[in-house]
Amino acid sequence: MTREEITQQIIAARLAKGFTWQELAAAVDRPVVWTTSALLGQHPIPPEIGSVLAEMLGLDPAAVPVLAAVPVRGGLPTAVPTDPTIYRFYEALSVYGGAIKELIHEQFGDGIMSAINFSVDVQKKPHRGGDRVVVTLDGKFLAYEWNRAT
Amino acid sequence: MTREEITQQIIAARLAKGFTWQELAAAVDRPVVWTTSALLGQHPIPPEIGSVLAEMLGLDPAAVPVLAAVPVRGGLPTAVPTDPTIYRFYEALSVYGGAIKELIHEQFGDGIMSAINFSVDVQKKPHRGGDRVVVTLDGKFLAYEWNRAT
Amino acid sequence: MTREEITQQIIAARLAKGFTWQELAAAVDRPVVWTTSALLGQHPIPPEIGSVLAEMLGLDPAAVPVLAAVPVRGGLPTAVPTDPTIYRFYEALSVYGGAIKELIHEQFGDGIMSAINFSVDVQKKPHRGGDRVVVTLDGKFLAYEWNRAT
Amino acid sequence: MTREEITQQIIAARLAKGFTWQELAAAVDRPVVWTTSALLGQHPIPPEIGSVLAEMLGLDPAAVPVLAAVPVRGGLPTAVPTDPTIYRFYEALSVYGGAIKELIHEQFGDGIMSAINFSVDVQKKPHRGGDRVVVTLDGKFLAYEWNRAT
Amino acid sequence: MTREEITQQIIAARLAKGFTWQELAAAVDRPVVWTTSALLGQHPIPPEIGSVLAEMLGLDPAAVPVLAAVPVRGGLPTAVPTDPTIYRFYEALSVYGGAIKELIHEQFGDGIMSAINFSVDVQKKPHRGGDRVVVTLDGKFLAYEWNRAT
Amino acid sequence: MTREEITQQIIAARLAKGFTWQELAAAVDRPVVWTTSALLGQHPIPPEIGSVLAEMLGLDPAAVPVLAAVPVRGGLPTAVPTDPTIYRFYEALSVYGGAIKELIHEQFGDGIMSAINFSVDVQKKPHRGGDRVVVTLDGKFLAYEWNRAT
Amino acid sequence: MTREEITQQIIAARLAKGFTWQELAAAVDRPVVWTTSALLGQHPIPPEIGSVLAEMLGLDPAAVPVLAAVPVRGGLPTAVPTDPTIYRFYEALSVYGGAIKELIHEQFGDGIMSAINFSVDVQKKPHRGGDRVVVTLDGKFLAYEWNRAT
Amino acid sequence: MTREEITQQIIAARLAKGFTWQELAAAVDRPVVWTTSALLGQHPIPPEIGSVLAEMLGLDPAAVPVLAAVPVRGGLPTAVPTDPTIYRFYEALSVYGGAIKELIHEQFGDGIMSAINFSVDVQKKPHRGGDRVVVTLDGKFLAYEWNRAT
Amino acid sequence: MTREEITQQIIAARLAKGFTWQELAAAVDRPVVWTTSALLGQHPIPPEIGSVLAEMLGLDPAAVPVLAAVPVRGGLPTAVPTDPTIYRFYEALSVYGGAIKELIHEQFGDGIMSAINFSVDVQKKPHRGGDRVVVTLDGKFLAYEWNRAT
Amino acid sequence: MTREEITQQIIAARLAKGFTWQELAAAVDRPVVWTTSALLGQHPIPPEIGSVLAEMLGLDPAAVPVLAAVPVRGGLPTAVPTDPTIYRFYEALSVYGGAIKELIHEQFGDGIMSAINFSVDVQKKPHRGGDRVVVTLDGKFLAYEWNRAT
Repeated sequence: MTREEITQQIIAARLAKGFTWQELAAAVDRPVVWTTSALLGQHPIPPEIGSVLAEMLGLDPAAVPVLAAVPVRGGLPTAVPTDPTIYRFYEALSVYGGAIKELIHEQFGDGIMSAINFSVDVQKKPHRGGDRVVVTLDGKFLAYEWNRAT
Repeated sequence: MTREEITQQIIAARLAKGFTWQELAAAVDRPVVWTTSALLGQHPIPPEIGSVLAEMLGLDPAAVPVLAAVPVRGGLPTAVPTDPTIYRFYEALSVYGGAIKELIHEQFGDGIMSAINFSVDVQKKPHRGGDRVVVTLDGKFLAYEWNRAT
Repeated sequence: MTREEITQQIIAARLAKGFTWQELAAAVDRPVVWTTSALLGQHPIPPEIGSVLAEMLGLDPAAVPVLAAVPVRGGLPTAVPTDPTIYRFYEALSVYGGAIKELIHEQFGDGIMSAINFSVDVQKKPHRGGDRVVVTLDGKFLAYEWNRAT
Repeated sequence: MTREEITQQIIAARLAKGFTWQELAAAVDRPVVWTTSALLGQHPIPPEIGSVLAEMLGLDPAAVPVLAAVPVRGGLPTAVPTDPTIYRFYEALSVYGGAIKELIHEQFGDGIMSAINFSVDVQKKPHRGGDRVVVTLDGKFLAYEWNRAT
Repeated sequence: MTREEITQQIIAARLAKGFTWQELAAAVDRPVVWTTSALLGQHPIPPEIGSVLAEMLGLDPAAVPVLAAVPVRGGLPTAVPTDPTIYRFYEALSVYGGAIKELIHEQFGDGIMSAINFSVDVQKKPHRGGDRVVVTLDGKFLAYEWNRAT
Repeated sequence: MTREEITQQIIAARLAKGFTWQELAAAVDRPVVWTTSALLGQHPIPPEIGSVLAEMLGLDPAAVPVLAAVPVRGGLPTAVPTDPTIYRFYEALSVYGGAIKELIHEQFGDGIMSAINFSVDVQKKPHRGGDRVVVTLDGKFLAYEWNRAT
Repeated sequence: MTREEITQQIIAARLAKGFTWQELAAAVDRPVVWTTSALLGQHPIPPEIGSVLAEMLGLDPAAVPVLAAVPVRGGLPTAVPTDPTIYRFYEALSVYGGAIKELIHEQFGDGIMSAINFSVDVQKKPHRGGDRVVVTLDGKFLAYEWNRAT
Repeated sequence: MTREEITQQIIAARLAKGFTWQELAAAVDRPVVWTTSALLGQHPIPPEIGSVLAEMLGLDPAAVPVLAAVPVRGGLPTAVPTDPTIYRFYEALSVYGGAIKELIHEQFGDGIMSAINFSVDVQKKPHRGGDRVVVTLDGKFLAYEWNRAT
Repeated sequence: MTREEITQQIIAARLAKGFTWQELAAAVDRPVVWTTSALLGQHPIPPEIGSVLAEMLGLDPAAVPVLAAVPVRGGLPTAVPTDPTIYRFYEALSVYGGAIKELIHEQFGDGIMSAINFSVDVQKKPHRGGDRVVVTLDGKFLAYEWNRAT
Repeated sequence: MTREEITQQIIAARLAKGFTWQELAAAVDRPVVWTTSALLGQHPIPPEIGSVLAEMLGLDPAAVPVLAAVPVRGGLPTAVPTDPTIYRFYEALSVYGGAIKELIHEQFGDGIMSAINFSVDVQKKPHRGGDRVVVTLDGKFLAYEWNRAT
């Protein structure tokens, strides 16, 4: 039973049982983007949370320690994503990535936005021209520093 | 004189003259992410704005109509970006893309976040663990609709 | 039971039962291109339509909620398609894509043809030199606009 | 003087002189999509037309025989196009290509839409939800036939 | 039962039963290259022919309608073929493709050799230096013509 | 002066001077496919032939020894060719390559068609359905043999 | 039962039964590199040899005709091999390939080393600095010749 | 003046002056494969040797320290080489690489053939079936050993 | 039972039984990085060690000879790794690889760090700014030497 | 004057003037790996240091502000490096990357080694079997934490 197999079972079970991602997140009191990405195989799920989710979704209890291990993360099916909903974010990076880099350096200096000490939020917000999807990427600034262990 | 050549001149002139991107944006009263991405070759620049920027940066006036044409947008140097500051956004998409897709569908139904009716914002925000880079992607929700011209 | 597995079952069942795509579309009163692409795994199929199709094709009723979920869309088997019937459209894009882009900008200004608020039509039309395949791509024009949620 | 160099000169000269693609097409009385794609390097341009265009755009007369030779056609800068205006057509092929193939076979039998005996049209059409880009791909149906020279 | 699975069964059954491709072609009175490529999954096989072949090879009769459907054609395992016998043809295209293009244009004008109205022949011919493989590719010339449906 | 630079000069000079490939081949009494591919950089050109061609095309005499050296052959601009005239041959290989391999083995045994002891011919042949392009690939059969130097 | 499946069985059976490749080669009195590559799926194995090997390795007798068919050869798992023992040969080609080409042309004229009329040998040879792996590639020289069938 | 530019000058100068690679190697008393690969940019050339070669080939003396620096080695123009003379070695690796790996392990144990403590030799050897190209790859066996600095 | 299948069983069994990699390494008295990489399929495992590990992890004893064979090593799932923990090492190579090469040549001369006579160590070391991961790559220097067997 | 052009000038000037990387690092009192990678275009160089280096290497003073800007980092010429000295590090990642990931998680929990708060060291260390290259990668451990700006 690999993590990939468990992820496939989770996807099927959620649809069969009719849970929303929000309901699953609420059941374990964790942020919904975190919970969804964890259930899709991108984060380890602590055993006490994994047990709750496994029971809700009817997974074999043996899945719990596998869910608790750090998975091999990431990896879209293709380097350039094909699903239109996901692709638009790749396109935004392709069009605005250079500008975002320049402005991080202008505002913070040399460094990066961490994708590890990091959170993502997805919100529905109103606009007279139609509702908007607002995705916030929020990561700690990490300055390039040349340090070594003491 | 291609748009690519003008972009190279802009990059060099900005460093030589010591303008910040914010100063260039302020001079033309446009959002700084828009202005930066436009100067990096990703948007057409209306002639009245292009003239101001061309003068500030010492570009040949013949650049103005080229800047005003719609460019061929996008295109990172490689499909998977190598610059660490840009890569972290690709990684975030690789790790969280599936979850963002699921939650857009759960909150809005079938459709996408537009990357055309769209804006990006880069902010520096405080946190007790260190300043954070907060990037907001804000696009109109577009529902899948099967329409045809009348 | 993943969407991909259901798609394989649909393809096999349609041939075994001898339905045309047009018959399947007529049975659910939806456009034939939409119906065909949905059955090939590219659109969610509302449960009331999914039930009809599942019964016609002899699918397990448990397929209905899976068909109703938004699928991961797109993705030709290879980035450059190999099937000659599909390849000719890629070739047309390769040869005429630049011109189409220029003329959209000339007629509409800076923006794109939406592939979401969009429909496709395939027609057989006569010509003295032989019948012609006429494919109409019809998408809403979306102007580049820099908006943000209110 | 290669065809690629001449194409670059045409792009620059058109912007500098302020011609629309429609004006250039009208001057030589050819369809605008054909004229635009030819000027972008995708078709040979007969000398009598090439001479008119070369004069309008201020090209060296030595360009005329190069324009008249059959070019190496096609070739987007990357296998998956990055420009959003062009990408949407690739996405449409990725999402609807399978369905288009099925329906060509259902309506015509085994064969393809020719991309050689072919024309493209770009129209602006009204819709209460906003103007629409309507692109018509119109190619002769070619049946798979196993023939040999006599 | 997909077409790919049937192709695998055909390959195994032919070896187990010891038929040559020529014998299979003769049994259905079709050209041997056509028959071989069809049995390898590249052409639809009309039911009356498919029934004969299915019986000879011991296939399930349910394979007949699947064989009769237009398959997704083409697609070598890798973009550059690795099998030496197939690779030599890719190499010939790599070395002589430019010259063939030039001479088609010189002899016929602007256009292509059709790969649809097309046949292939493989012959063994003598030469004092050793037998030769003579492969003839024979396709209708298609001129670039800008036509549209009436 | 590299071979690639000389090839570019040959292409330009041929168009400017208006020679056909056939005329160039006749001038040196060599087969036209050989001559064309050699002038496009795919074969060494013996000095006595190179001198004639260099004079006809107005090349610097220093080009003659470069033309006489064995070039780095092959290499389409992309692994999958984009030019439609060349692509059809790749498509033919993609669709019929497996069958050609099987039939070479059935007729000759285990081995390949040489692409070195090899010739190509391009002919225009009549057919009631329209003229046909007939390309003949003719290579020595090479059997797999496990030999070693004595 | 495909050739690939039989190859997997051979690999497993050889380890389980503890045969060396040399022992298998000796049993059928063929060169060890030939025997090993054939058992790894790269050459047809004549039935009389295939029967001996199938019995030694405990394969199903039905494997014998599959082993006797010409396989689809070649194809490393990735275009650039990752296994260090195999990679060093790719690296040698990357570093010395240009020189080997030049020297084949200098010693033999225009042509290639055949990889079909060809043998490989692997030897362990002493050196005061440590034993050396000596791999000899021995192929017939094939001159570029423009011949056609008579 | 980069190493790549010097390599281009060497290639051109050698043809213009008519030196064989063997003559250049003899002039500096080094093995001919080493000398050829070094002149093609794959090895540093000690200054005393570089001076001799620079003078023979008419290079600027400033090239000598650039030739003496360790170059960035390797790198065929494409991952899969296209030149037929070079490709055959890639094909041999593709067909025999697995067998060579197995036999190195069988004869030597776990480890590799070094491509650093390594030499290559190209010989012309007779055979009644025609001259043969014999390429010997000779590298030190390196056993996998888990060592660390003291 | 292939090595890949055994690796999957090891990964699952370790999580199910709750062993740390350190415990497994201690049980066989081997370095922990070596043991972990060997259990992940990258090194042959001598039978006496393999037997101990197979018993601890509940593997079939038939796995022992498969574990003892030299595996096909290496090969990340994609050429550019996607897992963030692994990617950072690729990024370090992308940013610092050129400098490391220059300094190896400056300190040692022309040559490489062996990845065969090699060890890796992972340590947790303190720093006032937070614990640090210290990975030491320790390989024998191998000078480029042109030797041949005696 | 782009950063890439300045990097090329630095490489050429260092060889022409005969400076070691260590001498350049000592002149500006920075670690040698940092200085080398910065001079190879991977880090911004503060103006006071840039001025010293520009003078030593004879660069145009206008290079100083370009050197001081944050560069687009990373990017080996190919995704899989070809230079043997650099490749061995890629190979080490390919063979040991999975084990390093597992052990970071076992020792530190879920997270990564930072490549930003990071240093690299290259040392020559003795061993009775020959000198060893010891490369130490030393990065801050970053735990996966789900934080957001306050």
